[in-house]
Amino acid sequence: MNQDTDATLHPIGIVRSVLKDRALAPKQNTEGAPDAWVEVAPAYAEALVGLAPGQKIILITWLHEADRTVQQVHPRGDLTRPIRGVFSTRSPDRPNPLGLHEVTLVGMDGMRLHVEPLEAIDGTPVVDIKSL
Amino acid sequence: MNQDTDATLHPIGIVRSVLKDRALAPKQNTEGAPDAWVEVAPAYAEALVGLAPGQKIILITWLHEADRTVQQVHPRGDLTRPIRGVFSTRSPDRPNPLGLHEVTLVGMDGMRLHVEPLEAIDGTPVVDIKSL
Repeated sequence: MNQDTDATLHPIGIVRSVLKDRALAPKQNTEGAPDAWVEVAPAYAEALVGLAPGQKIILITWLHEADRTVQQVHPRGDLTRPIRGVFSTRSPDRPNPLGLHEVTLVGMDGMRLHVEPLEAIDGTPVVDIKSL
Repeated sequence: MNQDTDATLHPIGIVRSVLKDRALAPKQNTEGAPDAWVEVAPAYAEALVGLAPGQKIILITWLHEADRTVQQVHPRGDLTRPIRGVFSTRSPDRPNPLGLHEVTLVGMDGMRLHVEPLEAIDGTPVVDIKSL
């Protein structure tokens, strides 16, 4: 077994989206997020075998603009809501800013996956893809 | 904003489980996985505020015994099933071995979270907790 305990993520792809700015992105997929493309790096071609349009998949992203020092937030940025710990929210700001996205794979073009809906912004690294 | 693009995960806790060996662990939570404890590191006490027994939460773990070089598998280790890419499976062996676990928070004891069911083995690092 090839043990690896360093816990360093290697991006396997990148999000291409019309969403360019975190401030303008929806908070969740369910809130009018657009379709987007995931450009998977050529090194991971074999890992894509078996994916087909129409499937629901899970993307895990690295929210590279997140603030990792944040432990408490007003949920959804709503200052009228009581502050709480990020582990009881879906805040992108958190110690390990992993984004979790259930999407539909609507098309494939070589190493590019067309998915919807996706609230992650353009340039967000993708670190994993799983079956739902 | 405190940008951090190094994509290095800092474990925020660790799994304590009767499951000691990957070979004996169920493939998924839904297959008779036991209850377990997550010991959260003291540095993350503030991030836990708002969690309460009875909630469903998502744990993301770092599957530290995984083989990161694996890109294709026989699903569920069943050699009669056609080989496919890990991105269309839930194989723990994958380029970034993140484990995704929907669990019920059945109790809390200070910084220790009692959860069920959890198929991750004893000693698995926990890297994130999210509301479901």
